[in-house]
Amino acid sequence: MLGVVLTSGGMDSCVTTAIAARECQKIALLHVSYGQRTQARELKAFNDIADFYQVEQRLVTNIAHLAQIGGSSLTDRTIEISPANLETTEIPTSYVPFRNAHLLAIATSWAEVISAGRIYIGAVAEDSSGYPDCRPEFYQAFQQAISVGTKPETQIEIITPVIALRKSEIVQRGLALGAPLQLSWSCYQGESLACGVCDSCALRLRGFREAGVRDPLPYAIEI
Amino acid sequence: MLGVVLTSGGMDSCVTTAIAARECQKIALLHVSYGQRTQARELKAFNDIADFYQVEQRLVTNIAHLAQIGGSSLTDRTIEISPANLETTEIPTSYVPFRNAHLLAIATSWAEVISAGRIYIGAVAEDSSGYPDCRPEFYQAFQQAISVGTKPETQIEIITPVIALRKSEIVQRGLALGAPLQLSWSCYQGESLACGVCDSCALRLRGFREAGVRDPLPYAIEI
Repeated sequence: MLGVVLTSGGMDSCVTTAIAARECQKIALLHVSYGQRTQARELKAFNDIADFYQVEQRLVTNIAHLAQIGGSSLTDRTIEISPANLETTEIPTSYVPFRNAHLLAIATSWAEVISAGRIYIGAVAEDSSGYPDCRPEFYQAFQQAISVGTKPETQIEIITPVIALRKSEIVQRGLALGAPLQLSWSCYQGESLACGVCDSCALRLRGFREAGVRDPLPYAIEI
Repeated sequence: MLGVVLTSGGMDSCVTTAIAARECQKIALLHVSYGQRTQARELKAFNDIADFYQVEQRLVTNIAHLAQIGGSSLTDRTIEISPANLETTEIPTSYVPFRNAHLLAIATSWAEVISAGRIYIGAVAEDSSGYPDCRPEFYQAFQQAISVGTKPETQIEIITPVIALRKSEIVQRGLALGAPLQLSWSCYQGESLACGVCDSCALRLRGFREAGVRDPLPYAIEI
């Protein structure tokens, strides 16, 4: 079984890559830049993780239209990245409208052409930012779109192995699998030091804290 | 009601644009190039149609990764465009894997940001090339993905106004609505003269013939 893995370079996708490497005979890694602020740093993390797993089949794409379309603090520098508020149920400014549908569409086209049977994506539903396109219902609906929207002989299954995990469980799972968490990058703002205060840093740091492990990344603040 | 229309520049999208212009207070037109052979000609058709309807809000995007991914004679010049065979039920080489999911994802992100309530797409199911992502089931599944994958306050409906029509009915509908069919472009191969033999030309020409009307476009063959 060949599996396509959507590897952004963040912690969740790093652990998802480790899971896919364990479950599939072979993996192919897909990275999608979308004009987000830290795209160069994330691409480096992607390549570091791909090197770690000695993956030859890599596809790096850029969907600049997400930045053209805007509507998110990640792609539009006139919108401020709000500091993390892990208590609220509001959708944060970092939400990139319907982003994960773009990622899955690219993964599906690639999977259909290279005859991969699975697409792994490291979406996290509960213990996360509240993005609507991270919920299980979204993946169920998209699975149906794949089933009816590709060739009859194409069989592609979306796998979301960390969707129901807490961040601390993702850290623990990654450690258990020997995932290279030190090579991943989660921060929405920094490229040499992680800021420690954006949504993504806050969630990651809470995960490490709850797991009782120190995050190996360098931070601009005391962690 | 603001409607986003996916206007490729072909006949079906031209008539779909005419229908949307009639049904919505305002329309915004979206064009997606994907490295297909005739993309310059199709972009011209898009702009001509947008000018005709005096549409100010236009978004032109390019998803070059569909050409990177390949698997289709439209984007990979090493795969020959097969001559039309309107009798077969096989999927032709011009099928671009899961292409319409990419178009809908872009349309949805844009619609969510500009608060459009509808997405129009000129997919044709029955009297067409047999692409799996042109069938009603695909649009139903994608509709569900939009409903659960966007913000709770976002309400976007996919409209496929010509999906059940025969090509001849699309021609007649276009004529009845005064759609600028002379500005549209359908050929997969030619840019100044339409080839008349590719799938897309063959379907278009059969539609005009069955409607009893002469196609206003210039062809490289006697039509």
